[in-house]
Amino acid sequence: MAPIDTPEAPLKSSAAPENHDRSMGQLVVDVALRVLLFATALVAVIIMVTSKQTKMIPVAPGLVVPLDAKFDHSPAFIYFVAALSVACLYSIITSVLSVFALMRGGSSTKMQFHFVMFDALLLGIVAAATGAAGGVAYIGLKGNSHTRWNKICNTYGSFCFHFASSILLSLVSSITLLLLVWLSIYVLSKKIARR
Amino acid sequence: MAPIDTPEAPLKSSAAPENHDRSMGQLVVDVALRVLLFATALVAVIIMVTSKQTKMIPVAPGLVVPLDAKFDHSPAFIYFVAALSVACLYSIITSVLSVFALMRGGSSTKMQFHFVMFDALLLGIVAAATGAAGGVAYIGLKGNSHTRWNKICNTYGSFCFHFASSILLSLVSSITLLLLVWLSIYVLSKKIARR
Repeated sequence: MAPIDTPEAPLKSSAAPENHDRSMGQLVVDVALRVLLFATALVAVIIMVTSKQTKMIPVAPGLVVPLDAKFDHSPAFIYFVAALSVACLYSIITSVLSVFALMRGGSSTKMQFHFVMFDALLLGIVAAATGAAGGVAYIGLKGNSHTRWNKICNTYGSFCFHFASSILLSLVSSITLLLLVWLSIYVLSKKIARR
Repeated sequence: MAPIDTPEAPLKSSAAPENHDRSMGQLVVDVALRVLLFATALVAVIIMVTSKQTKMIPVAPGLVVPLDAKFDHSPAFIYFVAALSVACLYSIITSVLSVFALMRGGSSTKMQFHFVMFDALLLGIVAAATGAAGGVAYIGLKGNSHTRWNKICNTYGSFCFHFASSILLSLVSSITLLLLVWLSIYVLSKKIARR
């Protein structure tokens, strides 16, 4: 029996490390994407929260009052900050768990399954937040002549710059979440093909 | 050899139909969700496009002009209609492909893999559209005293009712897409566990 077993053994042992290496590589990309998600979500929230700008606005002839522009003046931006904060917290937890999995030498299918479920949910939440903030910020930038909503970005320039950066970063967060979902699905389908 | 083979054969043949039944059940749920997505996206687009309302608005003392409220007055709603139309078209194509798979007796892993990739992408697009339309519609409903954007729903009641229904339906579309992603991931991970 020994001569028959011998050629099979090296084949198996060379295939296993290859699979293992590929799985580890995918896990490293996973961790990198989660860290990117954390960074973009955190910076987006910080930029949005620190966007307050005060300007002296003439309200009547001879009367000028200081008026604030703050993110919490619109429910769309409050939702935006809440959603991005959740994404930030989620990315911390999942990054730590992914790093642990990396140290243990690979992640289980069950863990990947739970991760991709929550990734998809977060994708929906963060994409909706990006859309809501983007829609309202666009009115602030361009105004709307039909409804007589005036643009405010000509007055509050730095405030609008903060908003634009923050919304751009949250778009990056959304795309990162989409890539995380795609990566997980790719890994899961590769596991099926390999068996 | 015959007496040894006999007890194995029924075991195998009873396990295979069970797996097959489960897989067919999942495919039926998949088709049902895709039809739901089609219905909600189509109705949302139709309601949004037919929302035009004309009112006589006093613009100066003694001067009353007819003013329209239409969805294409805001880029957020144009994006909304575009995104939901894409979702509608996508749901038709994937429903037909899923029904074909159902008639053939099951779907391939490769097809599921491609479906869930596009489902996740569509989830992001439709969620962002829902958020954008929702954010702008909320200003229309409540106004914003800080930026002096007046509410318009007190004047254009039926227009706003159309918008609210349409946004609610697109929320259902988003949730349906999330359920489709979850179902596909569940099916993929079950395939791994079964092998």
